[in-house]
Amino acid sequence: MSLKTFIAQLAVEAGHLNENFKQMSELIAQAKIEQAELIVFPELCVSGSCVGDKWYKSEFLRDLEMYNEQIAALSEGIAVVWGNVIEREGKLYNAVLCALDKQIIHVECKKRLCDDGISSEHRWFTAGEASSEGLMLNGNRIQFVIGSEEFDDAKEYDLVIHVDASAWSLEDEGAYDAKMKDLSLKKVIHVQCAGVQNTGKNVVLFDGGSAVYENGICTHRLSDGFVQESALIGKCFDHKIKHKLMNGLVTAIREFDRQTLPYGPKWIIGLSGGLDSSVTAALLSMAVGSKRICAYNLATKYNSENTKDNASKLAEALEIELRNGYISEVVDATVKTAEIYGYKEENMATLVHENIQARIRGHLLSTFAQIENGVIMNNGNKIEVALGYATMYGDSIGAIGPIGDLTKVQLFELSHEINDYFGKEVIPERLLPVVNEDSMTWEMAPSAELREAQYDPMKWFYHDWLIDQLTNRNVEVEQIMEDYLSGALMNSSMGRWLKYYHLDEGKRFIEDLEWVLRQMRVAVFKRVQGVPIVKVTRKSFGTNYQEVQGTCDVSMRYLKLKEEILRG
Amino acid sequence: MSLKTFIAQLAVEAGHLNENFKQMSELIAQAKIEQAELIVFPELCVSGSCVGDKWYKSEFLRDLEMYNEQIAALSEGIAVVWGNVIEREGKLYNAVLCALDKQIIHVECKKRLCDDGISSEHRWFTAGEASSEGLMLNGNRIQFVIGSEEFDDAKEYDLVIHVDASAWSLEDEGAYDAKMKDLSLKKVIHVQCAGVQNTGKNVVLFDGGSAVYENGICTHRLSDGFVQESALIGKCFDHKIKHKLMNGLVTAIREFDRQTLPYGPKWIIGLSGGLDSSVTAALLSMAVGSKRICAYNLATKYNSENTKDNASKLAEALEIELRNGYISEVVDATVKTAEIYGYKEENMATLVHENIQARIRGHLLSTFAQIENGVIMNNGNKIEVALGYATMYGDSIGAIGPIGDLTKVQLFELSHEINDYFGKEVIPERLLPVVNEDSMTWEMAPSAELREAQYDPMKWFYHDWLIDQLTNRNVEVEQIMEDYLSGALMNSSMGRWLKYYHLDEGKRFIEDLEWVLRQMRVAVFKRVQGVPIVKVTRKSFGTNYQEVQGTCDVSMRYLKLKEEILRG
Repeated sequence: MSLKTFIAQLAVEAGHLNENFKQMSELIAQAKIEQAELIVFPELCVSGSCVGDKWYKSEFLRDLEMYNEQIAALSEGIAVVWGNVIEREGKLYNAVLCALDKQIIHVECKKRLCDDGISSEHRWFTAGEASSEGLMLNGNRIQFVIGSEEFDDAKEYDLVIHVDASAWSLEDEGAYDAKMKDLSLKKVIHVQCAGVQNTGKNVVLFDGGSAVYENGICTHRLSDGFVQESALIGKCFDHKIKHKLMNGLVTAIREFDRQTLPYGPKWIIGLSGGLDSSVTAALLSMAVGSKRICAYNLATKYNSENTKDNASKLAEALEIELRNGYISEVVDATVKTAEIYGYKEENMATLVHENIQARIRGHLLSTFAQIENGVIMNNGNKIEVALGYATMYGDSIGAIGPIGDLTKVQLFELSHEINDYFGKEVIPERLLPVVNEDSMTWEMAPSAELREAQYDPMKWFYHDWLIDQLTNRNVEVEQIMEDYLSGALMNSSMGRWLKYYHLDEGKRFIEDLEWVLRQMRVAVFKRVQGVPIVKVTRKSFGTNYQEVQGTCDVSMRYLKLKEEILRG
Repeated sequence: MSLKTFIAQLAVEAGHLNENFKQMSELIAQAKIEQAELIVFPELCVSGSCVGDKWYKSEFLRDLEMYNEQIAALSEGIAVVWGNVIEREGKLYNAVLCALDKQIIHVECKKRLCDDGISSEHRWFTAGEASSEGLMLNGNRIQFVIGSEEFDDAKEYDLVIHVDASAWSLEDEGAYDAKMKDLSLKKVIHVQCAGVQNTGKNVVLFDGGSAVYENGICTHRLSDGFVQESALIGKCFDHKIKHKLMNGLVTAIREFDRQTLPYGPKWIIGLSGGLDSSVTAALLSMAVGSKRICAYNLATKYNSENTKDNASKLAEALEIELRNGYISEVVDATVKTAEIYGYKEENMATLVHENIQARIRGHLLSTFAQIENGVIMNNGNKIEVALGYATMYGDSIGAIGPIGDLTKVQLFELSHEINDYFGKEVIPERLLPVVNEDSMTWEMAPSAELREAQYDPMKWFYHDWLIDQLTNRNVEVEQIMEDYLSGALMNSSMGRWLKYYHLDEGKRFIEDLEWVLRQMRVAVFKRVQGVPIVKVTRKSFGTNYQEVQGTCDVSMRYLKLKEEILRG
C-alpha cells in the first residue's frame, strides 16, 4: 500500500536543539497540510552530529529526550520518523524513532557505529542489539537503517527508510546511486542531512540529495546543493547541482561565518596574485559578499609586477577593496632587533629571511584583522599542508582553510569552474598550466616569491596524485612501490609525469618518494597547530586523521621493495 | 604453587617496533639468567599505544604479527606474557599473548575497549568476545586483564596478570592501590607501561609503578617515576618517587625532545620574569640541561625593572644564557606599516597594541629559533588555555606546552617543589601569593605587562577550582549552580574566595560564571591551533577533549537555576 511521504532534508544546526525542533514543527505542520501520511527527517536531527563531548553532559541528554516527547506530541494523524539519541539503562544510543498519534510506536538503535574522525560514535554511544522485525505501517513492512549502517536483510522489506547524516566527500559522489542499483531493493527512502557542521579542526559538509529509489532506480531527488529542502515525494524533482565542489566550498565558508562569527566581521585576506589566494578570494566573495572583504597585497622587493597586477585585476573583478603597501619596514626592524639580541644579518640563512617575510605578513594581517574587528582567511592547499610547505604563524594562519583539502591540480579545475561561474576571467589564466602531450608550459609557475626566481619544489601532477593516494585513497606506500616495480605505474596516467620529472630512474624515484614521506611526517607538528580545514575528500587533514609526532619504523616490505627498486 | 616472576616495565617507544623488540629480547635473556619462570611486559608493548592511524596500515600489522612469532621463539624454558595486536578474520584485536617453549599457548583479546581521546580503540580494534577460562600454569589458574578492563570474576583465579598502558594523571594517583584493597584478590601482578608517547596534540606520560598485590596489599613495586625498570618479584623494592608532578613534566619534555627532535636543537624561551615562564624554564633546564637553552627578555616600556630583575636572577640560578633587548623597533615599524595600509595609530584600540607586542615576541622568538636551529618553548597555563587568555601567533606559540594542563594554583605548589628540589629560591617567592585567612597578599600579582598597571582578569583560586571542576573533574555547570543555591558551595573551601571576589551575591556570581563559560567556548578557535600539551590530569585540552566551534543551547535546567540564583 502506498504511503504519502514528505521528505524533510533538514540543514541541522549542531547544538541548537530549539531551532532544529522549531524547523521540525513547521515542516510537520506543512506535511499535514499536504496530507502526508509519513514525514522523515535525517539522523541526529535534533542535536546535530558534531557536538563534540557534549554527549557526556547529562542535562544535554535530558533536553534531547524531552524533545522526543515534544516531537511525538506533533504526530497526530501523521507518522513522524526522526533521528535522535535515546538513553536506556545508563547507555546512550544513536536511534531512529517513529511516532504516530502522539505515541512513540517504534525505536531502533544504530547497530554499526561510525568512527571516521568526524563522528567518534563508539566514544559516546553503545551499539544497538540485533535488528527488530521492523515496523508495520499501512500494510508496509518497514526497515530502518541509520547512517553508515549496511542494508542487511533489506530485501525482505516493502520499504527501507534510511535516515542519514554522513559527511560529504568528492570520492563518494555517485556512490550511493551505484549502491542502490547494486542492491536493487523494492523501495528505499534516503533522507540525508544538509548544511555545515564542524569538529573543531574540520568544517564538514552535508550535501543533502535525499532521494527515493524503486528497484534500484532513483525516481525522486531533493537538491544535493548542501541546502535544506523538503517536499512530498512526487513533488520533488530530480536535480543535481552544477559546480558542486565550488558550491560546497562557498557553503562551508558562508555557514562557518554565520554559525561561529554571528557578529558579521570583516574577512581579512592576503592577495599575493598567486593561484591559491585568488581562488580563495573568489570563494570568499561568493560566500560573504565583496563588501565584507579587506584584501591586502603585502609586497617585498621579491614580488613581481606580474603578481601585483594579478592581485589588482582580481580585486577589480571581484569588486573587493585591495590595499597595497610594503612590509619592508617591519622586515628591516626585525633584522635590526635581531642584532640587538646578538644576531648579525650576514649570518642569517636565506630561509630565515624567507620566514621573516611570511611571519610578518601573518603579523600584519592579524593586526589589520584586529583593527577591522575581522578574521583572517587561510589560503593553503592540501599539498602545502601535507608537505609542511608553509611558515608557521606566517602564511599558515587564519580562521578557516577552504582549500586545505584540495590538491593543486584540483585547484586548476576549480579555477575553470569559478571563471565559468563568473562568466569572465576572474582567476588569471596565466596562473594555470597548459598541459601538452609530454610536457607543460606555465606563464607563471607557482612561487612563494620569498627570494629571486624561487619556485615551489613540488612536482605538480605527480605529487598531487601521490598525496591523494596516500591520504584519501588510503593506498599504502608499499602498493605504490610494487606498482612502480611491476611497470603498472609507468603504464598509468602517471607515467608521463614520472618521465617528465625524470623519476623513471629507480634511485631518483626513491629519493623523491622518501622526501615526500619525510616531509609529510615532519609536518605533523605544523598540522596540529593548523587551521580548521573544509573537508571535501574522504580523508582531510584534521580530526579525520590521527597523526602523532616522531618517527615510526618503516615496514619490512618497504625495505625489501626499496632495495629492489634501487637495484633497478 | 609459586611462579618465579620477572616484571618488565618497558618504556615503550611508540612506532619503534625493532627497538621495543630488542629491549624485550634482552629482558627475556636477563630473566632466564635469574631463573624466572614467567616474565610479564605491558599492554601494546611492541607497537606502543599512540601510533595514530598507523593501525590502518596492513604492512605495519604484518610486522607486528611477525614480532609475535619472534617473541614466542625466545620463550624456551620461560613463560612470556606481552601485549600486542592480533588479526583474526580481518579484524584487529588488542590482545595479551603468552608463549612457552616456543609456542604461543594463550591469547586473550581486550573486551572493554577504551576511548579516552588518548586511545581511540574502537576506531581501530574490535572488542574481544566473552572471557576464556584463563590459563593454567604451574598449577596456577591465571586470569588476564588488559588496560582499562574491569576485574570480572577475578576472585575465582589464583593469579591475575594485568598488562596495562594507561595514561597517567594526577587524579588517579593512589587509585589503583585503593581499587586493589577494595577487590582484595588473592594475587595480582600489574605491569604498567613507562615513558612518554604523544597523540599529536597531547604529550602523554606513563608512570610505571608496576606492582604485586596479595590480598589487596601491595607487596612489591617498581619505580613510579616514568622510567623503564625491571626485576624479579622479591628483588624489587616498594618505592614511590618524590616530587612526582615535577618529575613527570621534566620526563615529558626530555622524552619529547629525544623522540621528536633527535638532532638536539637549542630550546628558545621567552623569560618575562613572571611565574609561568620561570617555572617552565626551570623544568626545561632539568630536562635538557642549561647549555641547550637560549632565553630572551623581550621588553617594552611596560616591563618593570622588577620582572626584568626576576628574569636575570632566574637565568643566573639556572645557569642559562639570557639575552636582553627591546622589541620597540618592530612595534614602531608595525604601527608605521599599518599607516601605509591606511590605519592611523590614534584609531588603534589598546588591545591592538597589546596583541602587536605579544605577536612580535612570537615573531622574534621564531626568528631566533630559526637562526639557532632551535625550537620554541610554550609557557601557557591551563587557565589561560581554557579562557583563551593568550594572543594567537604571539605567546600561544611553541613546540610543547609543559604547564598547559596545570592551573595557576597548581603552579604555586609546583614552584615550591622546584625550589625545594634546587635547594634555593629559583622561582622568586615574590611571584607567589601569601594566603591569609580571608584575603591574600601578593608582592607581584600576575600581569602580562602589555600596558600600565595591567593585571590578569582571572579570579585566582576560584577560577582555578571552577575550571578544574568543569574539565577534568567532569562536573556539570548545573551541579555547581545547585551547590551555590543550596549553600554547599559557600560552605566549602571555595566559600572564602566567593566572598573575597564578592561572588556571594547572585547577580555577580552568574555574571562571572557566564563570563568564564563564554570565554571557554570562544577559546576553542585558539585551542584547535594551540601547542601540544603535556597531559597531567584526566582531561587535558588536546585530543583528550572533543570540542567544536560555535554556540550550543544551554540546558533547560541551566535556565531554571540561573533564574533562581538571580532571584536571590
